[in-house]
This record gives sequence, structure tokens and C-alpha cells, in this order.
Amino acid sequence: MMKGNAVIGQSGGPTAAINATLSGVILGAKECGCIDKIYGMRNGIEGLLAERLVDLRQAVAGPEDHYALERTPASALGSCRKKLPAPDSGDGIYEEIFGILQKYDIKYFFYIGGNDSMDTVDKLSAYAAAHEIQVRFVGVPKTIDNDLCCTDHTPGFGSAAKYVATTVQEIARDCSVYTVRAVTVVEIMGRDAGWLTAAAGLPRLGGQITADLIYLPEKPFDQEKFIAAVRAELDRKPNVVVAVSEGLRDAQGAYVGQSAQSGAVDTFGHKYLSGTAKYLELLVKDRIGCKVRSVELNLPQRCAGHLLSGADIAESVAVGRASAEAAADGATGVMGAFVRESTRPYRAHIEFVPVSRVCNKIKYVPDDCFNASADNVTDELLISIAPLVLGRVEIPEKN
Amino acid sequence: MMKGNAVIGQSGGPTAAINATLSGVILGAKECGCIDKIYGMRNGIEGLLAERLVDLRQAVAGPEDHYALERTPASALGSCRKKLPAPDSGDGIYEEIFGILQKYDIKYFFYIGGNDSMDTVDKLSAYAAAHEIQVRFVGVPKTIDNDLCCTDHTPGFGSAAKYVATTVQEIARDCSVYTVRAVTVVEIMGRDAGWLTAAAGLPRLGGQITADLIYLPEKPFDQEKFIAAVRAELDRKPNVVVAVSEGLRDAQGAYVGQSAQSGAVDTFGHKYLSGTAKYLELLVKDRIGCKVRSVELNLPQRCAGHLLSGADIAESVAVGRASAEAAADGATGVMGAFVRESTRPYRAHIEFVPVSRVCNKIKYVPDDCFNASADNVTDELLISIAPLVLGRVEIPEKN
Repeated sequence: MMKGNAVIGQSGGPTAAINATLSGVILGAKECGCIDKIYGMRNGIEGLLAERLVDLRQAVAGPEDHYALERTPASALGSCRKKLPAPDSGDGIYEEIFGILQKYDIKYFFYIGGNDSMDTVDKLSAYAAAHEIQVRFVGVPKTIDNDLCCTDHTPGFGSAAKYVATTVQEIARDCSVYTVRAVTVVEIMGRDAGWLTAAAGLPRLGGQITADLIYLPEKPFDQEKFIAAVRAELDRKPNVVVAVSEGLRDAQGAYVGQSAQSGAVDTFGHKYLSGTAKYLELLVKDRIGCKVRSVELNLPQRCAGHLLSGADIAESVAVGRASAEAAADGATGVMGAFVRESTRPYRAHIEFVPVSRVCNKIKYVPDDCFNASADNVTDELLISIAPLVLGRVEIPEKN
Repeated sequence: MMKGNAVIGQSGGPTAAINATLSGVILGAKECGCIDKIYGMRNGIEGLLAERLVDLRQAVAGPEDHYALERTPASALGSCRKKLPAPDSGDGIYEEIFGILQKYDIKYFFYIGGNDSMDTVDKLSAYAAAHEIQVRFVGVPKTIDNDLCCTDHTPGFGSAAKYVATTVQEIARDCSVYTVRAVTVVEIMGRDAGWLTAAAGLPRLGGQITADLIYLPEKPFDQEKFIAAVRAELDRKPNVVVAVSEGLRDAQGAYVGQSAQSGAVDTFGHKYLSGTAKYLELLVKDRIGCKVRSVELNLPQRCAGHLLSGADIAESVAVGRASAEAAADGATGVMGAFVRESTRPYRAHIEFVPVSRVCNKIKYVPDDCFNASADNVTDELLISIAPLVLGRVEIPEKN
């Protein structure tokens, strides 16, 4: 057993579940028997470099602290977006980081994040191996985008998917009260992968109304086919709701939102950058001429702590805890991944995979999850997502 | 006791609580002993004119139907936006409406809605009085805007305020994780009155972070003062969150969003209409140059059935029920209003006021609810709003 201190960081965009994972890592670190001090780095690797460290044994002392932390959305330690240079680049930053780790006797390094964070873990562990430094680096997955490779799904996705499914259903219900022909375009986060947008279809499984058309970035977006599909829906009923990923691109790879620029400038003379949904709103208004509205779900979809998925929070804590155990057992350069055993009933376990197989890669929604016209997703995909959003998390209510 | 049938309609924008009120009216109508058939008009007065009526005794039969209806956001009967001409205009529409009421032996007419709906009730009851027709017309208040006169507050406001307070707090938390200087502008519904935007301040009462600056449409918006206030906040901390009403106007009465137009056109050659928050995003970017983001809360704030206020739903049912009782007792041309007896503990009762005193008027946030610089609201205002958002409503969860 390698005795020493640990440091934990959070990086990338905040989620509703990233603090549950933090709580899990702290729990595991407390339990493993080989970790003394547990530091938290404020604002990720930037905070480590500035030695802005917080004592997590003190800050998250008792069960009630863990309980509260697991129900607090957004990154409690703060976040950053910093990409390290290659380990062999000769940049002094690695000497700096390892100097600080040595200074604080840190033997265990946990980094909670997505793609970019796994890149940091990969580089640090490669540097440590090359220089025979005894520090273990473990990545802990987190992203609402669900686009990390080698894992069935990612912590944070279930809660965000629950928010998206609930909100799109409520929007569809809101829109259904008028008899006037109207189209509502809802924009959901996801620049490269469409997992979160696909979740807009979930209410369908329960026989509830929701988005009629769903477009993911995995498939080239064709404006003419889109307009034809919207027209066909409008022939069926007066209110049509369309869910789109922010990252929709045309066959040439240009973002749909970008096409709205074409020289338009705002009051201040800046080029006008439209969102995807806003562009499609203008397109429908121009081509079909009915009432159109666009709704960008925006920040609330990643930080809605009032609509957590119980399954997601439980798994987020579990993968944090397992990561500390794995590090104590000798693992380094790895990330905890979920392996699904069964969907009905839902069962999964955690395995550890080399972080090099995860970082800088994207897991896309596979081809067989789309319907033939690529304007919706299959029930099979929704059924596989459903268990991840289930379960309620009680939040103490205060004003 | 006047025996006959009743008809109930919903009008204007949907809310999360309007069906709770519908449930209440149905309950009261079932209980009063003088109402036989209970009709629902599909899509308000438009549906009545088309005789699209639904049997509500059958559709909402047992306690479990009432339970489900009270938890279903958006207008179950559908809605419309139709303004009646003056009763003495000679337009044949009144003869048409009263002909249909006679055909179905309708003696009780309930209309759930806001300002415009109360205008409909006022005109119909005036026409009935002038022509000595024995039909009773009762308006039942509903609006997330909380801007109806003669009532302490309106059903639907408490749930929307809860959504706004929760979401703005979550956004503030999300924004707080980065160290980069950034401004986030959140746009909240409210074209004339700022009650709902004021609710963004609620988390403050519980010591939680939320919007740092709050601008309501009651006060002329001054761009220079706004930029100075944002700069002052940025001097204090890196992340500033601003809550603004969609209806902000400058001293000349022009909507803030309108000033962003100034000739800019979109891809399709249409004049570019920016939202208030989007305009302020561009303004901050231009003048301060830091990272800026705008979030329009949009439709979800009025139809978020997953975040109902228990107090709001209970009162929404109560005012519906009381309306049926009042009509049975002989009232017509009135609307149920809440009279607050005490804030701590919260106590209120329902009285009936002439609908003519309510319709086509707006209740603004009073002057003494603003701080001196008019960029935030007082704690006293927040304390008075707080009891309206309290209480949880359990929603059966399905996928």
C-alpha cells in the first residue's frame, strides 16, 4: 500500500451530478486506508498550479456534508478549461505540477471531467511513467453529452436527459393548447454527439406527447428534407415540436447556425451569430410562413439540480468511490467505465479502462439508432436510455 | 336556486396551475346542487362558437381524475386569444353566443384567464344584464404575470416564480465555477409588470447565490447606468448574473430589444428582432468586452409542471371551487380575488370583486419595492412573494 495524500479536481462544464462524483471520491479516499490528507484543487489544474488547495476532509466531514454535496449542482471546487502541452514538449509545466505534487506529498490524483480532462490524466500519467514518479492518476467520467468512449454512459447524462425529456414534454404540452398552426424548435446541447437531444423522445415511451421530429448532429442536416418533414407533420396536426442538437451541420460540415450569418451584423457592427434553433425558426417562417418559435434550453439543462435522476446520482457516487479504491489498489492512467449487464432490469458494473482509449475521442449515436428518414430516433435507443433517468432525488426545499 | 348547465373555458397563455383551477371549478360545480351538465369549451370562446364542447362530468369523473388534472400543466381544454367587440357594437357575435348558451341550457359560465379573459367576462355579463338574460358569468384568475388588479396575487404565479427562482439560482451556480470574468443575462417573461422577474431574487432570502442585478419594466432602463452597475459587480467578483424582464423599455418607452434592430436583417431579408437579453449581451460585449452569455427562460417558465408550488396549486383549486359556489349563490360579473391576512404565517381568503375593476388594467410592482438605484428589489417584496412558492407537489414519475 502506497501511503500519501490525494488531490481531486473538477474540470470542464459543470453538471448536476459532478459533485456527487466528488463526494464518492472523497468517500473512497477516506475508506481506503492509505490516503491521509484529501486536497481539492480550486478551478482544476489551474488551481493546483496556483496552490489553491482546500482541505476536503474538513470541508466534507460528516454524512450530512456528503448528502448536501451530492445534491448540489455545478462544480463545487470550481472548474477550468486548460489543455496541457504534450509531455515531451519541453514545456516546464510538468516540472511545475510534479513539484507541487511532491511538495504536498500527493500520491493520488483524481480528475473528474470529460474528454479534455481525460487528456490531462493521460498526459500526466504518461509523464509520471516516463520519469518513474510514483503518483497514480485516475480519471473520473463526467459529461452531460454522454460522448465518452469505452463506457456505456457517463455520469451527469441521466440527470440532463431527465431535464431535457421533462422540459420538451412540457413545451409540447404548452404548444398543444392553441389551434393556430405553429412550429416550435427546441435547441439542446450537443456539439458533436446527439445523445442528449435523443432524450427528448423519452416521453414517447410513456405515451406522452413530446417532440415530433428529432435531429442529431451525427446525420448531415438537409434543409429541404427538414421543411418537407415539418410540412408533413403540420398536415397531421396544428402544433409541431422539433428537437435539434446545437451542433447540426449540413453535408459540407458547416454548422446550420452559421448559414444565418451571411453578412448580417448587429447594432454594434459585429457579425450576427445565430443559434441553430433561431436559424431554423427563420427558415420555417420564410418557407412555410406559419407561427414559429425557437427555444434554446441553454444552461439550465446542465445544472438543473431540482430534477436529478436518482440512478445517475447513485452511479456518480459509485464511480467516484470505485476510482479511489482502484487507485489504492495500484491503478493509474485509467478511467472508471460503466458496463451494462442488462436493461430490464437495469444492471451495470464498473470496470477500469486505459484513459488513452478515452481521451480525445467521441462516442457517436450509432447509425442503427435512427429511423429511416433520420428525423427521429428508434424506440430501442430510448428504451436503453430510460433506466438512466429514473429515480427521484429528494432535495430539501428552502424558499 | 337557478338550475341549469355550466360551461367552463380556459383562455390566454397556459400556466402550470390553470388545470388545477379547472379541477376546482368542476368540483364546485359538482357540489353546488344546482348545476346539471358541466361542459368544457375546447379552445375557449372559439370552441363555444363552434359548439366544440366536452362533457367534464365524464372526463373528470373521480378523485384520481382530479388528482391528475391538478398536476397537468398547460390548458387541458385548449386555449384561444379572442377579444370580443363592445356589447353595443351591433356585432352579431353576442346573439350567436347567447343562442348557443340557450341551446345547451347553460346558466353558469366560467372563464379562467388573465386580463383579456376578464374583459370577455365583463362584456358578456354586461350584455346579459342589458338584455335581462339569466346567465351568470364568473371570471377565474390565472396568469404567471401576477398583474391582475384587486387581488393580492394570481394563481399560476407561485409555480412560475418557483421555476424562475430555482432556475436563476442554478444558472448563477453554474456560472460561478469559472474564474474568467463573465456576465450572464437571463430574460424572464413579463411585458408590463416585473413580478416574475423579481422572483429571481428569492434565493437571496435563503442565503443562496442568484442574480446580482434585477431590472423590471416598471422603471425606465438606462444603458449607461446598467453598464456602470455591471462594472461595479465585476469589480467585486468574476461572475455576474443579471435578471431582466422581457419588457424593459427606455425612458422614451421603446423596448430595449427593439434598439438592436436598427436596420439589421437576417438571411431572409427580414428585420432582425432581438430579445432583450440578447441585446444586452451584445451591449456588454461591446462596452465591457468580457465573456457574455444570454439565456431566455422562454416557454418552460410558464409550463413547468415538474416544479409546482404546493401553495399555488392549493389556492388554484380553491379559487375555482369558490367561483362555482359564488355563481350558485347568485354572483355574476365577478372574479375571485385573494386577500392576504398575514404573511408570517401566510394566511389569505377569497373575496369576489367586480370584473370591470380588473379587466384591461395592470397591477405594477410598486415604487417602494425597488432599491434606490432601481437595479434590484427589496427584501420586503421577496418576503411577501416567498409563501406563494412554497410547498412541493408530488408528481407520479413515469419514464
